[in-house]
Amino acid sequence: MMRIGIETIDGSDSGRDPCRRQDCWGHTSDWRHRVRTLQNSGMAAVDRAQKPSFTKSLFLGQVASELVMPYPLQRGEDKANTDRLAGLARDYLTTTYDPVKAEADRWVGDDTIRDLGELGLLGLFVDKKYGGQGLSQSGYCRIMEEFGRADGTLSVVMGVHQSIGTKPLFLYGTDEQKERWLPDLAAGRKLAAFVLTEPNVGSDAYNLETWAERQSDGSWILNGQKRWIGNGDRDVLTVFARSDLGHVAFIVEGGSEGLETGPRFDTVGLRANRLQRIRFNNVRVPAENLLGEPGDGFRIAMNTLNNGRMSMGTSIAGGMKTFLRQSIEHTSTRRQFDRELIDFEMVEDKIAWMQTQIYGIESMSYLTTGLVDGGQADFALESAMTKVLASDTGWYALNRAFQLHGGTAFMSEHPLSRALRDFRIFPIFEGANDVMRAFTALNGIKALSEHLPDVKSISIGDPAKAIGVLAPYVRERVGMRLRPDRLEGAHASLSKQVGQIAEQTARLRSSAEAALRKYGSKVQEKQLVQKRLADAAAGIYSQVAAVSRISAVIDRDGAIASEPERALAINFCNSQARVVGRAFRSLEINDDKHTHQIGRAARSAGGYTFDL
Amino acid sequence: MMRIGIETIDGSDSGRDPCRRQDCWGHTSDWRHRVRTLQNSGMAAVDRAQKPSFTKSLFLGQVASELVMPYPLQRGEDKANTDRLAGLARDYLTTTYDPVKAEADRWVGDDTIRDLGELGLLGLFVDKKYGGQGLSQSGYCRIMEEFGRADGTLSVVMGVHQSIGTKPLFLYGTDEQKERWLPDLAAGRKLAAFVLTEPNVGSDAYNLETWAERQSDGSWILNGQKRWIGNGDRDVLTVFARSDLGHVAFIVEGGSEGLETGPRFDTVGLRANRLQRIRFNNVRVPAENLLGEPGDGFRIAMNTLNNGRMSMGTSIAGGMKTFLRQSIEHTSTRRQFDRELIDFEMVEDKIAWMQTQIYGIESMSYLTTGLVDGGQADFALESAMTKVLASDTGWYALNRAFQLHGGTAFMSEHPLSRALRDFRIFPIFEGANDVMRAFTALNGIKALSEHLPDVKSISIGDPAKAIGVLAPYVRERVGMRLRPDRLEGAHASLSKQVGQIAEQTARLRSSAEAALRKYGSKVQEKQLVQKRLADAAAGIYSQVAAVSRISAVIDRDGAIASEPERALAINFCNSQARVVGRAFRSLEINDDKHTHQIGRAARSAGGYTFDL
Repeated sequence: MMRIGIETIDGSDSGRDPCRRQDCWGHTSDWRHRVRTLQNSGMAAVDRAQKPSFTKSLFLGQVASELVMPYPLQRGEDKANTDRLAGLARDYLTTTYDPVKAEADRWVGDDTIRDLGELGLLGLFVDKKYGGQGLSQSGYCRIMEEFGRADGTLSVVMGVHQSIGTKPLFLYGTDEQKERWLPDLAAGRKLAAFVLTEPNVGSDAYNLETWAERQSDGSWILNGQKRWIGNGDRDVLTVFARSDLGHVAFIVEGGSEGLETGPRFDTVGLRANRLQRIRFNNVRVPAENLLGEPGDGFRIAMNTLNNGRMSMGTSIAGGMKTFLRQSIEHTSTRRQFDRELIDFEMVEDKIAWMQTQIYGIESMSYLTTGLVDGGQADFALESAMTKVLASDTGWYALNRAFQLHGGTAFMSEHPLSRALRDFRIFPIFEGANDVMRAFTALNGIKALSEHLPDVKSISIGDPAKAIGVLAPYVRERVGMRLRPDRLEGAHASLSKQVGQIAEQTARLRSSAEAALRKYGSKVQEKQLVQKRLADAAAGIYSQVAAVSRISAVIDRDGAIASEPERALAINFCNSQARVVGRAFRSLEINDDKHTHQIGRAARSAGGYTFDL
Repeated sequence: MMRIGIETIDGSDSGRDPCRRQDCWGHTSDWRHRVRTLQNSGMAAVDRAQKPSFTKSLFLGQVASELVMPYPLQRGEDKANTDRLAGLARDYLTTTYDPVKAEADRWVGDDTIRDLGELGLLGLFVDKKYGGQGLSQSGYCRIMEEFGRADGTLSVVMGVHQSIGTKPLFLYGTDEQKERWLPDLAAGRKLAAFVLTEPNVGSDAYNLETWAERQSDGSWILNGQKRWIGNGDRDVLTVFARSDLGHVAFIVEGGSEGLETGPRFDTVGLRANRLQRIRFNNVRVPAENLLGEPGDGFRIAMNTLNNGRMSMGTSIAGGMKTFLRQSIEHTSTRRQFDRELIDFEMVEDKIAWMQTQIYGIESMSYLTTGLVDGGQADFALESAMTKVLASDTGWYALNRAFQLHGGTAFMSEHPLSRALRDFRIFPIFEGANDVMRAFTALNGIKALSEHLPDVKSISIGDPAKAIGVLAPYVRERVGMRLRPDRLEGAHASLSKQVGQIAEQTARLRSSAEAALRKYGSKVQEKQLVQKRLADAAAGIYSQVAAVSRISAVIDRDGAIASEPERALAINFCNSQARVVGRAFRSLEINDDKHTHQIGRAARSAGGYTFDL
């Protein structure tokens, strides 16, 4: 769902951009031209980062402590409202909502939507004047965690309605547009959908085929088809299309003439989510339904997704908490070999791993929401990394829980077998994880390239000149120049972790710089390098989050009371430090050369051909 | 499905063994007593290893080249028969069998069973005189690969019928018993089941609750209940129970009075497999239905499972080949960002990884079947390691294929969404992977302890004395003493891999010895140590398999023709060498102390309690 291009990586877009087909995957080697296009683009002001992004700074070897310290613990009225709503949600979800019935009915239920609307849970971030709760991003994501704890499908239906369906209107709607639709959406009288994906357009969301033709009266005629649209058969559809004036985003109302929905997709999981095909046959969209200006469409889509990824992180953390609880319950009652399963080290290890990873994912997710609430405009990388780490770790946690349950989990009626079907989509949708990794690394590298005056002259002036510079030489030179930058403001008892983070950050900078100097603009092709840099960056960010959080908790509760939590934070940092170490090592020791040969051979053979 | 006890680890069992409740998990610290019990047991001769096991030798730091070189390529009539039957199977499975219909019908179909019987595919290893094909273990597993390639459920139904249902009769039946049942089973007129698991008996298969009471006329009266029994409602049930005379194995015929079946289990995957509950209410079993002698039951069950695990390895390899083919097909037709997906490095990397791992799993599986065909009686560790590595790697391969397909794979009609539901059980059933790891490591350590005269005096005489010996000291001393043992007979172009294997083997020995000297008999409690040693041993064995195989292929086809295969073998060895390196490193650098604290805290809290 994400176009990765040097000229579009912050979601900016120019309607008549002559470079729009020259994406970062390397079809054009004239990086200079593309960077200029970006700089000259008329789209500069809106949504541009005012402060540098934390993660972009990391790629420069800098730890921007002021952005992440102290940890953004929720406070005051926002916290009180969040707690109240979380309590309402948990109560409703444990006493009234039935995920088994929802799946059998293939819909979470109109009664559920009505009840959740009455409880105030459908317009969580919507302003109070439109009937919403006016929660912060942190508060919104806390409630999404409750949905994730209860049921994968319901959390997705809620996410579609709020995180991505209603959000564009909330972020980019005019007062008139908000007044017209937000009250019904916040009350649950209407449900919203995010209508981007097409049969030929998944990760490459820039190249939409749905077409909008502006009419002389200012209205638009829409043609094209969309797929995999949650709530696609409902009321308020935020639709993305291309036009002569660039990408556009509209509100299309359910029931519009020429709007054809269905048949519904039949999915292996999230089966209570109504996933639809949509066809637009000359659908007329009034001028007043346009969000932003013509040409803003791609940016609106990207920023909405950047926003939505955080609540996916916390929903998954909620799910992981349920998996852990179920695993403790099962392994402390099931006996084999004359003892409880949990008394075996291999079992205890999985329990401790889950507990540790929940802590990390939670810390990372809420640090990111705190960045948003603190007014940081550039959080795209942090939210992408949170999505990747949460969705991968959530899947591993589910698999560990499943393994601990043995055959029991394989029964259809067991909640873990439903979770197995539901959770597999998270590493795929709302930004496929590998695409998010490329996005993170390329943005970081781009930030670094702008910071190095001599790099532009090498790699932009003549990219070819940069190739062949020996990486070890560069690494050494860079290594000497860099003084590790330390996270400021962490509690003294975390000094070892702060030191680790500093070393890793210095190494991220030197590795990124080495890659840039070695490959020049061809680094855009070097996805395996990107993957390792992105995994390292995410690992560093997650440790920063854990250290920041535990420092705030020690300040608040004192060292003695927070000791168990400190052990958890340290354990998480250790586990992530190993991940980061592996990522860096694999930049140097890897099978890439073999990989390419073997991959090419497999491709030309069409499959495995070494049968005995 | 496996009792891990120092006295029972090779499947031996004494009906009146006074130690039967003193399992290896440490409830009794008198190891000397238990080892004596094993040595004095009357069960010595049958099925005991004549040659030492390859993997047990590995734990001594020895590479028993004569067992694994040259690679057991199938030859002659057995190969010709296998090829013919594999062709028949593939043809039938691609043209006639429909896994979608099978799942909808919740049964692979009586017509399928009839057809497969007519094609000769239901008595693959059964002697020709009983209507079977008389295939070797390698040949049998080649055909099972065809089933795995086509459909997870069908491969399991076939495995239940042949690998574990019919196998006990084949291995332990008298001529009379074989004449009575094998012809019908080989022809598919009857289907067999393996009836071991009970509600309270999973991995701890020794402690069966189903009870058999010998009657004065020599017949038996059977009471108890079983669960998760494939083909449990069919014809020839191999049933395991305990009795006053020790564990017993019987044939119980479908329709016996007092035999109650159902209701059937509803599972998330393998939905065409009829998984049953069974209740025995005073079922009378004639004396002539007893397999082996009273007291043999546990050994029969364990040896049957040891046998069955190899075909699981090859079925999974078959499945992986399908995942790879589907992935190449999808990624070389689906375009995003103006190019085929497979042109992206992160995609190509996954394709190459799958290709490489298939090669390794295949090499390991057929080296193990070759050990069996070569008359090696002790293959329990090799078959356990094959099962673990194949089932874990198969699951990872499926997940990579799934990820490459994006949302498409999440659709119910996509074969990968069915595979997602089917394949998750493989790391669990027929020996849960963690139990298999403990089994491998404890057997290896036991073999080593018997090899070290001074260890018995320390750890068996007084285990407590051994504790507290410093591991680094031991490691150093052991390291000096050991000369790395090299695999003999490998092709000269694999000398680097042979060197790696030698170093890893020396380190396995020194690590195992260090653990033994440090923990004494308490090493039985040290599951995380066991896990790392087992993962290292499996990694070494898999590299030996790849080197052995490619050496044989180079000899047969010449260096030039086999170059692409050599690249694959080397790539597999590199990937496994890294796994082994990580396993050894984690013996020294790990979070075990934190793990225990955190696990205990999570357990007493009943879940995660660090909410923000």
